[in-house]
Amino acid sequence: MSHRWFNDPIPVPDAVVGDAARARQAQLTKPPGSLGRLEELGVMLAAMQGTQQPSVDKVWISVFAGDHGVVAEGVSAFPQAVTAEMVRNFAHGGAAISVLAREWEARLEVVNVGTVQPLEDLPGVLDARVGPGTANIVHEPAMTAAQLYEVLETGREAAERAAIGGARLFVGGEMGIGNTTSAAAVACSLLGLPAAHLAGPGTGLDPAGVARKALVIERALAQHRSDQPLLALQRLGGFEIAALTGAYLRCGQLGLPALVDGFITTAAVLAAVRLRPELAPWLLYSHCSAEPGHRRILEALEARPLLDLGMRLGEGSGAAVAMPILRAAAALHARMATFAEAGVSPA
Amino acid sequence: MSHRWFNDPIPVPDAVVGDAARARQAQLTKPPGSLGRLEELGVMLAAMQGTQQPSVDKVWISVFAGDHGVVAEGVSAFPQAVTAEMVRNFAHGGAAISVLAREWEARLEVVNVGTVQPLEDLPGVLDARVGPGTANIVHEPAMTAAQLYEVLETGREAAERAAIGGARLFVGGEMGIGNTTSAAAVACSLLGLPAAHLAGPGTGLDPAGVARKALVIERALAQHRSDQPLLALQRLGGFEIAALTGAYLRCGQLGLPALVDGFITTAAVLAAVRLRPELAPWLLYSHCSAEPGHRRILEALEARPLLDLGMRLGEGSGAAVAMPILRAAAALHARMATFAEAGVSPA
Repeated sequence: MSHRWFNDPIPVPDAVVGDAARARQAQLTKPPGSLGRLEELGVMLAAMQGTQQPSVDKVWISVFAGDHGVVAEGVSAFPQAVTAEMVRNFAHGGAAISVLAREWEARLEVVNVGTVQPLEDLPGVLDARVGPGTANIVHEPAMTAAQLYEVLETGREAAERAAIGGARLFVGGEMGIGNTTSAAAVACSLLGLPAAHLAGPGTGLDPAGVARKALVIERALAQHRSDQPLLALQRLGGFEIAALTGAYLRCGQLGLPALVDGFITTAAVLAAVRLRPELAPWLLYSHCSAEPGHRRILEALEARPLLDLGMRLGEGSGAAVAMPILRAAAALHARMATFAEAGVSPA
Repeated sequence: MSHRWFNDPIPVPDAVVGDAARARQAQLTKPPGSLGRLEELGVMLAAMQGTQQPSVDKVWISVFAGDHGVVAEGVSAFPQAVTAEMVRNFAHGGAAISVLAREWEARLEVVNVGTVQPLEDLPGVLDARVGPGTANIVHEPAMTAAQLYEVLETGREAAERAAIGGARLFVGGEMGIGNTTSAAAVACSLLGLPAAHLAGPGTGLDPAGVARKALVIERALAQHRSDQPLLALQRLGGFEIAALTGAYLRCGQLGLPALVDGFITTAAVLAAVRLRPELAPWLLYSHCSAEPGHRRILEALEARPLLDLGMRLGEGSGAAVAMPILRAAAALHARMATFAEAGVSPA
């Protein structure tokens, strides 16, 4: 393979700033350790942003939307038309992620990487379709190699827009009817797990539906299984999943922290981290989804999410709900007084 | 006992609005249940606020500070002077709760209910001292009945200022060197538990210190144990703990939702709910503290906190970190589009 952008270097967070941040935490006016995980988050954000004044005030959310040929196998509780309908809902501000982005004054963009039908012009929606949905992975690879590289590049560009826009945190989200099937297939492929371990109800299948979905995933795996991240994405993934993988990889290269959402985004992260393990320190995990397979992928990544609220919506919504915890951790690290500054007696 | 204000009626959240809120949640553009606990929070906030447009945009934080005579028994890792020093730190904006209040644009007030020494005038600090700290509970009741009623009234007034100020959510916090000892004593007294079940490291005792603290609590319990909430508060509590009890009771009477913080505030809640069980529906629980006894008190209250981040600082800081989850739940409930509004196909 010729040299590709995603093989370019990924820096490490600044260890000197990290050490100074740990020392600063010990001087802030609180019993040592009493802010729990917020102390560790403050230190991580300081090291990632290279400053004792970390900030999560500017947040960029890119939601990638695409369709999935495997929906023909009856793997979703919702009709395929909902992917496009929800893109319109994002654009008009009625979706969960739209509401949360407004609430936190985050910048939200939607990137159409492959709805079945082209969409009319919509405010805040970029047209970057690489195809009319993926192929049905039971019969064919999800996408061609050319499509994969194109959509990875689309993800890369989203991370670059975020960085250029001054974002201090990147949140990736997704919308795509059928994408828990593709995400489970990619993760099973990379983790060497049977489909039954990662197939779940998604938007609302009953147990018989989940069993049928697991069989569909097994048929796809039997044809296309690979432990190579790019091959797994190409053969079993979705356009939005691969775009997320590209976005996370570029975040790492740019030194931009990314807050991971739920099941689908974590499968995209798994592919990204398998391709480039140096990406890991740039990723923070927002929540554990109610989609049962999420926990297994998180464990494989040794990830400790912040929230466990039974969410399973996608769109980046779990990350958007957890984001203020990072904002709080950054503010506390940057702005609490030290014992000396406040004239408070230490223990 | 003559009639006291805290025996006045506590309303119930609006069940009709609650039912309509559940119906609305089922119509919002998401798979049913996919927002997990945020759906239930949206319904609760709607029922409590009596509207399908619940909001947590105006938050009032009252931090009550007081000293504890039991500190003479060597139960804290920090010297008693820190209570007053931290009140100054709150006033000057350097404490964790000060930083978080600014970050969320919440109104923060500090109420001095009984530092050992009077304090100079400080911005944002109300002087409502009912005494120079409590008495040492190993030897005497913490406070007189007159002091108890006075400080309950002080808490009541804080809740009223919040309501008059237009707050949609009340957060109580506390500062008081030694107050994990008093809180544990009150909770043991009300729950009929031995001290060893609720004594913990507080601001940072080592295991020998925790064992000594448990013995101190046992000595106090042996003298003053009562399963009557007001007697337990008077004999074993702290001024800030009783003020919190008064504040929560008044929140319920006013129909103002309160977000409970950690170990100390939950002990104050326990007293309030034992006194007036109708208060329970007005309380939301923010986090599970690293102080080990917190989990037991939460279980006794059948409370399910939102966060578990290893925090154990007090000041209302855990509630301040969890508050945005309520804000998100309210915004999603109020502002997401329905399937019909957005033209999205239901499942």
